[in-house]
Amino acid sequence: MSQSQQKDGNKGAGKGEAFVTAITPQSEDFSRWYLDVVRRAELADYTMVKGCMVIRPYGYAIWERIQHLLDARLKATGHVNAYFPLFIPESLLMKEADHVAGFAPEVAWVTHGGSEKLEERLAIRPTSEVIIGTLYAKWLQSWRDLPILINQWANVVRWEKVTRPFLRTTEFLWQEGHTAHETEAEAEEETLKILQVYKEFVETELAMPVIEGRKSDSEKFAGASKTYSIEALMGDGRALQAGTSHNLGQNFAKAFDIKFQGRDKVEQHAWTTSWGVSTRLIGGLIMVHGDDSGLVLPPNIAPYQVVIVPIPRGNWQETVLPPAQAIRDQLTAQGVRVMLDARDAYTPGWKFAEWELRGVPIRLEIGPKDIEKGQVVLARRDTREKQFVPMADLLPQVSQWLLDIQAGLLEKARQLREERSHYTESYEEFKALMAGARPGLIYAPWCDDAVVEAQVKTETQATIRNYPFTAPSAEGKACFVTGRPALVMACFAKAY
Amino acid sequence: MSQSQQKDGNKGAGKGEAFVTAITPQSEDFSRWYLDVVRRAELADYTMVKGCMVIRPYGYAIWERIQHLLDARLKATGHVNAYFPLFIPESLLMKEADHVAGFAPEVAWVTHGGSEKLEERLAIRPTSEVIIGTLYAKWLQSWRDLPILINQWANVVRWEKVTRPFLRTTEFLWQEGHTAHETEAEAEEETLKILQVYKEFVETELAMPVIEGRKSDSEKFAGASKTYSIEALMGDGRALQAGTSHNLGQNFAKAFDIKFQGRDKVEQHAWTTSWGVSTRLIGGLIMVHGDDSGLVLPPNIAPYQVVIVPIPRGNWQETVLPPAQAIRDQLTAQGVRVMLDARDAYTPGWKFAEWELRGVPIRLEIGPKDIEKGQVVLARRDTREKQFVPMADLLPQVSQWLLDIQAGLLEKARQLREERSHYTESYEEFKALMAGARPGLIYAPWCDDAVVEAQVKTETQATIRNYPFTAPSAEGKACFVTGRPALVMACFAKAY
Repeated sequence: MSQSQQKDGNKGAGKGEAFVTAITPQSEDFSRWYLDVVRRAELADYTMVKGCMVIRPYGYAIWERIQHLLDARLKATGHVNAYFPLFIPESLLMKEADHVAGFAPEVAWVTHGGSEKLEERLAIRPTSEVIIGTLYAKWLQSWRDLPILINQWANVVRWEKVTRPFLRTTEFLWQEGHTAHETEAEAEEETLKILQVYKEFVETELAMPVIEGRKSDSEKFAGASKTYSIEALMGDGRALQAGTSHNLGQNFAKAFDIKFQGRDKVEQHAWTTSWGVSTRLIGGLIMVHGDDSGLVLPPNIAPYQVVIVPIPRGNWQETVLPPAQAIRDQLTAQGVRVMLDARDAYTPGWKFAEWELRGVPIRLEIGPKDIEKGQVVLARRDTREKQFVPMADLLPQVSQWLLDIQAGLLEKARQLREERSHYTESYEEFKALMAGARPGLIYAPWCDDAVVEAQVKTETQATIRNYPFTAPSAEGKACFVTGRPALVMACFAKAY
Repeated sequence: MSQSQQKDGNKGAGKGEAFVTAITPQSEDFSRWYLDVVRRAELADYTMVKGCMVIRPYGYAIWERIQHLLDARLKATGHVNAYFPLFIPESLLMKEADHVAGFAPEVAWVTHGGSEKLEERLAIRPTSEVIIGTLYAKWLQSWRDLPILINQWANVVRWEKVTRPFLRTTEFLWQEGHTAHETEAEAEEETLKILQVYKEFVETELAMPVIEGRKSDSEKFAGASKTYSIEALMGDGRALQAGTSHNLGQNFAKAFDIKFQGRDKVEQHAWTTSWGVSTRLIGGLIMVHGDDSGLVLPPNIAPYQVVIVPIPRGNWQETVLPPAQAIRDQLTAQGVRVMLDARDAYTPGWKFAEWELRGVPIRLEIGPKDIEKGQVVLARRDTREKQFVPMADLLPQVSQWLLDIQAGLLEKARQLREERSHYTESYEEFKALMAGARPGLIYAPWCDDAVVEAQVKTETQATIRNYPFTAPSAEGKACFVTGRPALVMACFAKAY
């Protein structure tokens, strides 16, 4: 990222109708389309700090919806929030060998405080297992203190070479849960419970269908015993890892001395987990639902579910504006999130295009003629259906459409994913599919060999997304690459 | 801060009744009392990172209440949230001369990313005027884009030598608002509007009475034209700055090129403001209301407003627990935040002490005899009043008490502040008062001379908290130190 972008304050006058046409079509260049949407819809912007973005108010409002809806689910399952330090002393980060190997190359280091050189360098957290583990070791005494179920909403930093807004940035926002348990089985149960929370949340609220499964050993979290993930298919046929849940076994407990006196009075190590989703979800939201006119937001996550555009004829501020305001107030009272765009300096056409670009699920138009006839015009962003709706039917119609759009987006994404899911037992076919324009997901019987996995990645750029829970058994099948007996069914894709 | 503390996992068994007696009485050592409460009530804990604390779940739940209640007020006044980068390139930080002078000594510097040395050092934001100003310069084009009213909830880092949980830590959480306006008058109006939002919020929700006023030039924010603050009096007679609002004039606009085309088509610099409150408010909450038994939380901010303690007689889990659960559900349905403490390993006496320590406003006791009589016992944390309440009156009684406690705490704090507020025209009397055990606030006519201000600070440790809006006029009075004509009435105190 660089500061080479021009001023784009597109609230200013004079940019007029060119606004939307400035988006690259998906079919022409999906990656360019993505960046255009991010910038034009004012979701995020580049900054003068390498790899760091600013999340602009409209993008941040989506993040606030995500926080609100996921936080409630985490609390309902017994988790509480806390806040741990940004800094990790170098010696502490070095304690868990796999973890160090995984994260040290991407750590930002603080070496000076004011004018003083620090005695020990401080890592800016790339993730917080280390710092949190050290505190759990301090707090934990007895089996009665377990489980510890803590989550934090925080920023983390990973020194990335290639960045892209929301998908991969040097600093990003996320939630990271960290739990400690009495037994191995409880830790595994927690890891899977959270995976289900993520799946249900992402599908229900973001209308983004996901495939849940276990990661291969080479793709698991640095320091974990097992990593599970949810994976979504984007509009360009690539996959996005949308959330991960790690069973850390006793690896961190041993490295950081997280011990307790058991029911049997014997001191033992706890079993820990960690799990997270990040602002990356916003990138997924854009790429799953967006089209050539811009964003398409599921109503549950949309900052505004309805935008009201008054049609300015004659003395509209006396005739059209008051009923428009009344409608806004009515809908708001019903819990609908409404934006009334009464700005004077823009034409209705410009506003239509802008709010389409911003993905608002329903547009409500109201002009002098509509008022005469006791009606309004409703337009759906997803299907572009337009309807005249009598005022008396407005509330039920809006409520119904919001439900329909939410369900419709999920169904559409699911269908698209099915169309782009393949099964093969032939590496040749696999290679041909992966070389296509929108490669999609390929299920294949798999020998579970990290060396072969690396070979497939080199030859096709495809990686194992996970071993899906719902995939058919691989029993009796031969690995599609080596012909050796398959141990598991794997889901491959080119991934973000 | 160091890691010298022992394990304090006081959820463990075997610590029994010694729990509360371990708090130092306020009268013996207020500072020690404060630290005891923070640790014993599990609000925060020390970490192995110098000057950095962990905010534990109970402390963080208070912060979440603060966020929730203040965020709603900021949104209601037209502000939106966003998120800006953690890092500020050194060259950028150096652009506003006063700002640099104020903040450079306390900046933490990132010099390496992974194994590479950075070409330019990155400051971890001590505050974000610089980074946000640079982006406003990019976004702002026309007067139509104004005002820009953005807030962010974030962590910031200031390299502090002496730290104390919540009150002064190397890393802390806060909100920082940053706005840009067309005219000087609008910027001043915003600065004062936010000061009023802070005052109303802190008094209504935290029951913490504050004095609003303007800071002296030597105490204003580095780079501001004017700084306003709200100041609260703590239980030990010291003052705490609870929030600040800065009118930045055109200082940052000029340093960072925040310009727009005005209504007159002439390019001009914007007028900007910034303002913030932080986790420091939690320190204030502890010190304003707390007593020798621990925390006393105002109901509006308390994570739990009512704790239910079932009295375990006989087969209580069949007889007492179900009605206790029913009461919890009833209260919860009415929007009351309830904790049912059904833990088996602790006695009621231990639980009473623990929840007193944690400042829960109302305790509800229920045992077999109460159930026979169709009643419960309610106990107020603030006044320690205890009442038998018939089940039929429970809901209204709890609601009434919550209101009474909220109002009572504010009133009590206000009375205490009045008792400890003095007016003097004599520097000798001033010195005597400031040398007392609980010095309080001293109002005095003042010549507004920074040199004399420094002298008073050296001689008495007292600083000017602000020039209160509500103080009587200083007209015709002589400065209490120099005898020169007083220009303003100042409020002095020893401060945190």
